Amino acid sequence: MAGTDRSKAHRQQIDESAPVFILHRPQLGENIGMAARAMLNCGLGALRLVAPRDGWPSARAQGAASGADIVVEGAAVFAALDDAIADLNRVYATTARRREMVKPVFTPRAAAADMRRAIARGERVGVLFGPERFGLTNDEVSLAHGVIEVPLNPAFASLNLAQAALIVGYEWRMAGDATPGRQLVGGDGPDPIALPAPRAKLLQLFGFLEAELDKAGYLHPPEKKPHMVRNIRAILQRADMTEPEIRTLWGVVKSLVGLKGKNKPKLKDFPAAED
Amino acid sequence: MAGTDRSKAHRQQIDESAPVFILHRPQLGENIGMAARAMLNCGLGALRLVAPRDGWPSARAQGAASGADIVVEGAAVFAALDDAIADLNRVYATTARRREMVKPVFTPRAAAADMRRAIARGERVGVLFGPERFGLTNDEVSLAHGVIEVPLNPAFASLNLAQAALIVGYEWRMAGDATPGRQLVGGDGPDPIALPAPRAKLLQLFGFLEAELDKAGYLHPPEKKPHMVRNIRAILQRADMTEPEIRTLWGVVKSLVGLKGKNKPKLKDFPAAED
Repeated sequence: MAGTDRSKAHRQQIDESAPVFILHRPQLGENIGMAARAMLNCGLGALRLVAPRDGWPSARAQGAASGADIVVEGAAVFAALDDAIADLNRVYATTARRREMVKPVFTPRAAAADMRRAIARGERVGVLFGPERFGLTNDEVSLAHGVIEVPLNPAFASLNLAQAALIVGYEWRMAGDATPGRQLVGGDGPDPIALPAPRAKLLQLFGFLEAELDKAGYLHPPEKKPHMVRNIRAILQRADMTEPEIRTLWGVVKSLVGLKGKNKPKLKDFPAAED
Repeated sequence: MAGTDRSKAHRQQIDESAPVFILHRPQLGENIGMAARAMLNCGLGALRLVAPRDGWPSARAQGAASGADIVVEGAAVFAALDDAIADLNRVYATTARRREMVKPVFTPRAAAADMRRAIARGERVGVLFGPERFGLTNDEVSLAHGVIEVPLNPAFASLNLAQAALIVGYEWRMAGDATPGRQLVGGDGPDPIALPAPRAKLLQLFGFLEAELDKAGYLHPPEKKPHMVRNIRAILQRADMTEPEIRTLWGVVKSLVGLKGKNKPKLKDFPAAED
């Protein structure tokens, strides 16, 4: 895609009411760029920078954004944090440290739900991220309505800037996402969502396969046959096949009918890891 | 912390039954290191590498791991993907592309729940990540039980390796995490969880403040006093104060009683962003 077409496509996917991300005194352009990329991944477009250490604009930020130009180029720069949050109705501060003051502490998931409710009421919401090495000071956190803390491994909880931005952005996006948790997807048709075949097709496959197995003498002795048939049907049921897949298996059975008597490969044990 | 103490602390926080992360033909050591860091953030320790392009061990991986040495040093290297998944009972493939074959496609959240159920049954679970530039081929995806797809901005959905590892690891961790979504945390006491003060303390503050406001002539005219009092009480109720905070505000009121008649600062409009 050409640059302007790409920017247009990106702009269309940005939710204008979404939270603003404010990077306070960010140090490395690369981290600003990677945070911008994570934001656009999540449909966020509004980036504010307070006193970026290495100046602005930044070629390193542009490079690390991996195509999220629209976020990097649209970034607003402020000299002071107070100014960067002045128009916002609600601000969350991200931090991994406990503070001496009493604040509501949100998981990213609960914060996302809180932000969605606030935005639905017409609020303008921001999320504040501290400098890479030091994080936010207590004074800076005191400007925020609440704190977002990711409940990670307590022995190794420090996230880099872009990873923190990704998790907050990801949870914000998920809080508005309706993708089913699990769905059958794929196949050759125009619709990516795959439906299990009508049962009549599966019953035909059962009939064909069981008749061939009878001829081949596999369903023997007769008193065990019903149990063997049910086991095979259970396997095929669990595969949840689409109609084209049933046709594929039909062809497989047809083809195998000509293969009797050949050497059969056997199951092997696990190979070990290289040392 | 010294290196060995740190390793010990990290080892204690790793869940041995957690999913194995398999990086297939990873290209840059930095990305392996950042993925290892994201894993340890989420309490995951088992990393497998299939044919890392730039060889192994990797100083760049070590550097980028930012202290997640235990994951990098414990990585198992395999020549072929088949061998790297041989002992696993269930494998998920991460990919952002639609495939021609029909597969169950999970969101990271649903996959995490699915993995937790499988692990609880005694299964050994792995998550497969493709090379940075190309992702997994259809043949590689065909080795997996299901696909994990992050439902991101469709116009900008590509995550880097470490970010993909972070989201899958994060969801796995959250699926076993009981942190309350929102809690009042902080203050000077030994318990980080802050409780709102007993109501008797708040009622004393109300009484003191309202008496001082009466003396100062603020609660005037008398017929408006009940409404004014209720408004002030509503503000203080919403602050959900702890007992030390009520003492702080008591001191504030006491102090302000001596401040009448001074110049009062006024609310200003918003400053604009720098251009």
